[in-house]
Amino acid sequence: MNTRLTTDLRIDGGRLIRRIEELATVGPIEGGGSCRLALTDEDRAGRDLVVAWMNELGLSVSVDAIGNVIGVRRGRSNGPPIMTGSHIDTVRTGGRYDGNLGVLAGLEVIETLERHGVQTEHPVAVAFFTDEEGARFPPDMLGSLVYVGGLGLEAALEIVGIDGAIVGEELARIGYRGLAPCPGPIPRAFVELHVEQGPVLEAEGTTIGAVTGVQGISWKELTITGQSNHAGTTPMDLRHDAGYVAAAIAVYLRQLALEMSDGRSDRQVATAGRLNLHPDLVNVVAGSATMTVDLRNTDEKLLREAEAALARFVAQTAAAEGVTVAERTLARFEPVAFDDQIVETVAAVATELGHTVRRMPSGAGHDAQMLARVCPTGMVFVPSRDGISHNPAEYTDPADLVAGADVLLHTLLAFDAADFDEQLCGTAKGNIEGHDQ
Amino acid sequence: MNTRLTTDLRIDGGRLIRRIEELATVGPIEGGGSCRLALTDEDRAGRDLVVAWMNELGLSVSVDAIGNVIGVRRGRSNGPPIMTGSHIDTVRTGGRYDGNLGVLAGLEVIETLERHGVQTEHPVAVAFFTDEEGARFPPDMLGSLVYVGGLGLEAALEIVGIDGAIVGEELARIGYRGLAPCPGPIPRAFVELHVEQGPVLEAEGTTIGAVTGVQGISWKELTITGQSNHAGTTPMDLRHDAGYVAAAIAVYLRQLALEMSDGRSDRQVATAGRLNLHPDLVNVVAGSATMTVDLRNTDEKLLREAEAALARFVAQTAAAEGVTVAERTLARFEPVAFDDQIVETVAAVATELGHTVRRMPSGAGHDAQMLARVCPTGMVFVPSRDGISHNPAEYTDPADLVAGADVLLHTLLAFDAADFDEQLCGTAKGNIEGHDQ
Repeated sequence: MNTRLTTDLRIDGGRLIRRIEELATVGPIEGGGSCRLALTDEDRAGRDLVVAWMNELGLSVSVDAIGNVIGVRRGRSNGPPIMTGSHIDTVRTGGRYDGNLGVLAGLEVIETLERHGVQTEHPVAVAFFTDEEGARFPPDMLGSLVYVGGLGLEAALEIVGIDGAIVGEELARIGYRGLAPCPGPIPRAFVELHVEQGPVLEAEGTTIGAVTGVQGISWKELTITGQSNHAGTTPMDLRHDAGYVAAAIAVYLRQLALEMSDGRSDRQVATAGRLNLHPDLVNVVAGSATMTVDLRNTDEKLLREAEAALARFVAQTAAAEGVTVAERTLARFEPVAFDDQIVETVAAVATELGHTVRRMPSGAGHDAQMLARVCPTGMVFVPSRDGISHNPAEYTDPADLVAGADVLLHTLLAFDAADFDEQLCGTAKGNIEGHDQ
Repeated sequence: MNTRLTTDLRIDGGRLIRRIEELATVGPIEGGGSCRLALTDEDRAGRDLVVAWMNELGLSVSVDAIGNVIGVRRGRSNGPPIMTGSHIDTVRTGGRYDGNLGVLAGLEVIETLERHGVQTEHPVAVAFFTDEEGARFPPDMLGSLVYVGGLGLEAALEIVGIDGAIVGEELARIGYRGLAPCPGPIPRAFVELHVEQGPVLEAEGTTIGAVTGVQGISWKELTITGQSNHAGTTPMDLRHDAGYVAAAIAVYLRQLALEMSDGRSDRQVATAGRLNLHPDLVNVVAGSATMTVDLRNTDEKLLREAEAALARFVAQTAAAEGVTVAERTLARFEPVAFDDQIVETVAAVATELGHTVRRMPSGAGHDAQMLARVCPTGMVFVPSRDGISHNPAEYTDPADLVAGADVLLHTLLAFDAADFDEQLCGTAKGNIEGHDQ
């Protein structure tokens, strides 16, 4: 594919940032962030605002049966659109950029085309998908999952939220239970711009991430049962300390991740994010402990190796301490590989535009990984200050926001110009239980 | 001292066990235990029952200003009594033996002397001290602490409980704000029978523990502050994981205790009993963690070594991970050494009575450690099944209860017969913050 820029077109950074700031005022929270949990009144207000912008741009707006909203600008031909987009729902303590950037950069790309009278060969679509965060209705990426046929519409509409609300009822209540069918039409390609939500780009001083795929995820909950004993009267060699075993597992995770990452491009990450002891008293050896393990790798084989190594360590440590460990899988997703042509186009476009770029996996889940099941898909990352996300302190330098939107614009234009074979790619399968990843 | 038994006297096991069972019916809880939190109506009912037994035995009963109750049987001479006793208050989920055994075995010793017409040279006293558990009013061992002058009466009476009640008001309300002064008269010696509350005797198949002292205690709370980050997007080498540091400290404690115990009689124990992460989510690297460390040793020098080694490890690990650690001392008691003559007498009496015996420190705190500040003091331990205490499942074999009471009887008689120099012993000093040890 020819990756020389087809025009010297640039997006209007001021306009992009004004839209980001305006959307952030919907469901405002202290610190400058937003709370727009999926299908709440705040989400409706955010949707109404973005739909109004779509209408102002003359897009053909459709809402599907799970509430995904797609605005389409016509092309010269009438085939599947080149699609971009993301989500505008947030976690309870959401920042300004997570999701919103991808949707509003999509609008900005279209407004730039419009203002400069650029006619594309193919339609260009910008979408926002319902309930990407999963913070109110599990699982996360619900709207895009239903869009690609990964979950049946009826099952999705019946999902009960953490507050007891039901997806179908809430969609109707806020006026976004649309008529377009699910699964939805397959785009020609899908490219999503998103903030990294991690520290890698900032730490390296790199502006653009050409995202190669999404890490596979293995979440387990371990429940360790030992024996509660007096901390003063129980000699070390007579203990069955569930807390010690939990701590040993947490320490082992660090060792495992470092060993498996050493000198490899597929870096293993491992986290014990939740750890609870019982009875959790200063002078009592913990009788039981519950902890979670979060393993991620971009290589399924390596992820399985990590799971197996952990299982061996848990079994050995439990036997040595005389405790039992029950394991429950909370989530398991295989890694998703994005389309090579899109990854290379993003990297080449970024370089042509004068930005530093690195190829990198996504550590978090995104709507793009669902779209990757049905069409060539890729993502563009821009830096997150201190890697902070899901927090009002989430921040990306305005120059980086603009850089990302320009890369998105020219990536979409490259695919519009290219003789690009449609193909089905991506094979991510899995299931997830109630958490935002 | 001559440790040949002076008589073939034995206590009446049936009578002892009947009293234990009757007292357990006061403040009954599911599983056969009792809830008699200090100075509650249940505590009053338990006190009334034991005082009635003291009166039936013809003892001279006095109540002091902090509610300690002492029943005295006359001796031929009129000097300070040989004292035994313990406490009858319980934790919320108290067993039948913790404290109660020492008080009721004291009554049984006196009833045995009475029934067999044994006249002692010195008075024999049995005491129950107020609020040993500290479960309602911190600190624990409050009554015995005030008895020996370790805390002023006025300060003690003003202590506010976890339910907002005030010690002085509750003492008056239940009718146990007595007239005897605090600090109280110094006994000739003090010997306390208690269940071990640990697994050592049972694990070794030993019947009697001749308690050499009480371990020193060092309790710290560590608050670790790192940075909360996304578990998927944050590479291992860019993390400041407070949870990892907490886990590493918990694992180090085990290593430290094992290394410091290897081949030594003063065995170090170390426990991380409480550990809380924030935000405590499966997919978030913990930004902060709070944990407690409980270090105990019978040797003050070794206890300080353990504290210093821990401090070094914490500083190194925190620096390597880029987190900060704030430390707060929750409690610090130096070890208490019991009187050698009493320890040896307990051991010799147990052997004469045909029981197996081992010298051992107490891992838990007891009223005896307060009495050790003012008079020669010792303790007798009997086994606790599975080391369980502070639990309705607390259990000691009836034969062991009887063995312990017989050892108590003959230890007291040995000191009555001996030409025993009164001396001040014990130097335990410290302070404690609101917890039962």
